[in-house]
Amino acid sequence: MDYLSLDKSALQGVKETLLEEYAAFKAQGLNLNMSRGKPCTEQLDLSMPMLDMLNGKSEVAASTGDDCRNYGLPDGLPELREIFGGMMEVPADNVLIGGNSSLNMMFDTVACGMTHGFSGCEPWSRQKTIKFLCPCPGYDRHFAVTQYFGAELIRVSMTPEGPNMDEVEELIKDPAVKGIWCVPKYSNPQGYTYSDDTVRRFAALKPAAKDFRVFWDNAYCVHELSDTPDTLLNLWEECKKTGNENLVFYFSSMSKITFPGSGVAAMAASGENLEVLREHFSFQTIGRDKLNQLRHVKFLKNLDGVREQMKKHRAILEPKFQVVLEKFQKELGGLQIAKWTEPHGGYFISVDVLEGCAKRVVSLCKEAGVVLTGAGAAFPYGQDPKDENIRIAPTYPSVDELKKAVELFCICVKLAAAEKLLEK
Amino acid sequence: MDYLSLDKSALQGVKETLLEEYAAFKAQGLNLNMSRGKPCTEQLDLSMPMLDMLNGKSEVAASTGDDCRNYGLPDGLPELREIFGGMMEVPADNVLIGGNSSLNMMFDTVACGMTHGFSGCEPWSRQKTIKFLCPCPGYDRHFAVTQYFGAELIRVSMTPEGPNMDEVEELIKDPAVKGIWCVPKYSNPQGYTYSDDTVRRFAALKPAAKDFRVFWDNAYCVHELSDTPDTLLNLWEECKKTGNENLVFYFSSMSKITFPGSGVAAMAASGENLEVLREHFSFQTIGRDKLNQLRHVKFLKNLDGVREQMKKHRAILEPKFQVVLEKFQKELGGLQIAKWTEPHGGYFISVDVLEGCAKRVVSLCKEAGVVLTGAGAAFPYGQDPKDENIRIAPTYPSVDELKKAVELFCICVKLAAAEKLLEK
Repeated sequence: MDYLSLDKSALQGVKETLLEEYAAFKAQGLNLNMSRGKPCTEQLDLSMPMLDMLNGKSEVAASTGDDCRNYGLPDGLPELREIFGGMMEVPADNVLIGGNSSLNMMFDTVACGMTHGFSGCEPWSRQKTIKFLCPCPGYDRHFAVTQYFGAELIRVSMTPEGPNMDEVEELIKDPAVKGIWCVPKYSNPQGYTYSDDTVRRFAALKPAAKDFRVFWDNAYCVHELSDTPDTLLNLWEECKKTGNENLVFYFSSMSKITFPGSGVAAMAASGENLEVLREHFSFQTIGRDKLNQLRHVKFLKNLDGVREQMKKHRAILEPKFQVVLEKFQKELGGLQIAKWTEPHGGYFISVDVLEGCAKRVVSLCKEAGVVLTGAGAAFPYGQDPKDENIRIAPTYPSVDELKKAVELFCICVKLAAAEKLLEK
Repeated sequence: MDYLSLDKSALQGVKETLLEEYAAFKAQGLNLNMSRGKPCTEQLDLSMPMLDMLNGKSEVAASTGDDCRNYGLPDGLPELREIFGGMMEVPADNVLIGGNSSLNMMFDTVACGMTHGFSGCEPWSRQKTIKFLCPCPGYDRHFAVTQYFGAELIRVSMTPEGPNMDEVEELIKDPAVKGIWCVPKYSNPQGYTYSDDTVRRFAALKPAAKDFRVFWDNAYCVHELSDTPDTLLNLWEECKKTGNENLVFYFSSMSKITFPGSGVAAMAASGENLEVLREHFSFQTIGRDKLNQLRHVKFLKNLDGVREQMKKHRAILEPKFQVVLEKFQKELGGLQIAKWTEPHGGYFISVDVLEGCAKRVVSLCKEAGVVLTGAGAAFPYGQDPKDENIRIAPTYPSVDELKKAVELFCICVKLAAAEKLLEK
């Protein structure tokens, strides 16, 4: 039943049935929050053995001999830099370990650009206007960081291959454009992985601004949900070929490998970029939490250990993604009122509903007890020009809750579409 | 034997004996680092039971019901805010818990002033010049933060009552003066505690700049070394009386209570100031490491638990301070070439040697294998105008090492003085 080909009276009939279904759902008094990419309790339980890695009788020396309880080792434990180097596919020597949050490292890096600048350029705060490219739909907290610092946010359209590189190559001719936010593997919210061609075009960028930087947030680098995982071309190696080593800041995190609140974050950069960042961090702190680093090293051991841990996450998450995708296919397939992505990894599914309906869908769901990510959240300034995109975060609810929530969601998508089509 | 009253030939004789003693020391091949206020291994061992507070079977919910492993609770665990509120003598509701480093919170607060400003004023980075008051000798890392952000550092002299408030009251008439660094209890490096009068004069300050802030780093609030501890008047209460609640940012930390690298930091501020800071932090991070907060809560329990823990630290540290002070009295007493403080708490002893001799003493010690804090480090730009101040950090070495190091130090103080007096 293609909604777009229904006449008004047929649509009216559909709407009335949907209103009944919706009312029945509302009566159930659901109370579910699917707004954020929050791991579920079973996922957190996977890392509980990590809390046994250190106890009152533990050896607490790093491989360097440093006592992990005391000050020192500002770059982090070499053994953890090694693991992150493997995850991000960069040399361990170029990795800096942070605190518990990669967002914090990105924020601090943007802040460093604002107050001190990169590549010897004037700090961004002293330049007249600065602009940041925001491939969207994208990650709201990324965009928010640069908005907070007063950057103008420029939309770049997303494709299944990654950001539209024609747009990017054109926009970076403007010397006010200082950076671009990227989640290159299993992008938030689509789950797209940038194609080899996209990565090569990134490595070949020649921005007008010498202090332009790619913020390469590889948050989901090992977060597979399929037997046919995506592969991401190694930007570090590509940049070496093009002599563009200073172009990129790399980020990653253990938040969705061990504990969201008590993981460890890391970043990597070229030697020249690291000089600026190490100076910044040397004034900011005497050192990070090395006991938590040690806990991670003892628990995960190495990159293979990380992959083993991620298989356990997958076993919990894959059925949740399947529930959503099967339901979508069953309830929305062929209606011509919704498109969705089918990611091989990551934390989200991106849905485009009928143009002008996203806010209505989110509001209908909320009224019936299911909180979704706000419509428009994935766009700069929270404004989706077509009001069509909704981010689905299936990780936190149980499979049973998820079934209900998605059923409700599909009703709301159809109801909003029927309303919209009847307006015409 | 007052060095100042010796004639040249007597001095020459003294110098030759000292050179022999110095040579004998050098032959011992010492290798000691006393440059930083680093807790010793026995101190770190005191907190090893904290690592048993959480294990694979632990209850990991906060008193709010939140799962401490997951995202959420950006202000921190209420039970830990309570403990810090007690330590800082401020309401728990005004406390924000940070990561593992209070220096990091101070840095971020200064950064917030630079990029966003306080009290609705222009961000500091957009104001022409900004200046920070640095009571000195003081804490080098404080001064370094504001120097890094391009503030002009203004010396304020320190007295046993705290900063010279006549100077402070005069200097804050300049609207470019935006803040002052304070370690109000057991100051770094003297171990002075600000007098009631000083605290009241702080509370009564009427700076020309509306965005002037006192950075009140109460790093040693419970770090007693004596049966007659100093008491610090409660600035929070005094500011309430004067209606000056927005004047102060309060900081404290568990770094020297539990683990230097894996403690928890906190800050406090008025409601109006918190609005600005909470916004800043909300873009910077989704939340802090709540498992480490929970570990601290389970280990320390409450303010009494903190005080119990501090008694154990004192038992380790007091003998070290006594070794230093006894040796000073025995070797340097009455010579008129050195003055030193006798703190009731904190981490340091401040020594003023003969004017123009501090660098020489530090360099002589280093040559013989004992690294001290660099001469001048306690002053803005690392420049001690009289080249006389040296910070002694007795916490890290063992008592036996300390005895040797201080013996060497006293020889170097005398040798440098003899050299200097012979120059005249």
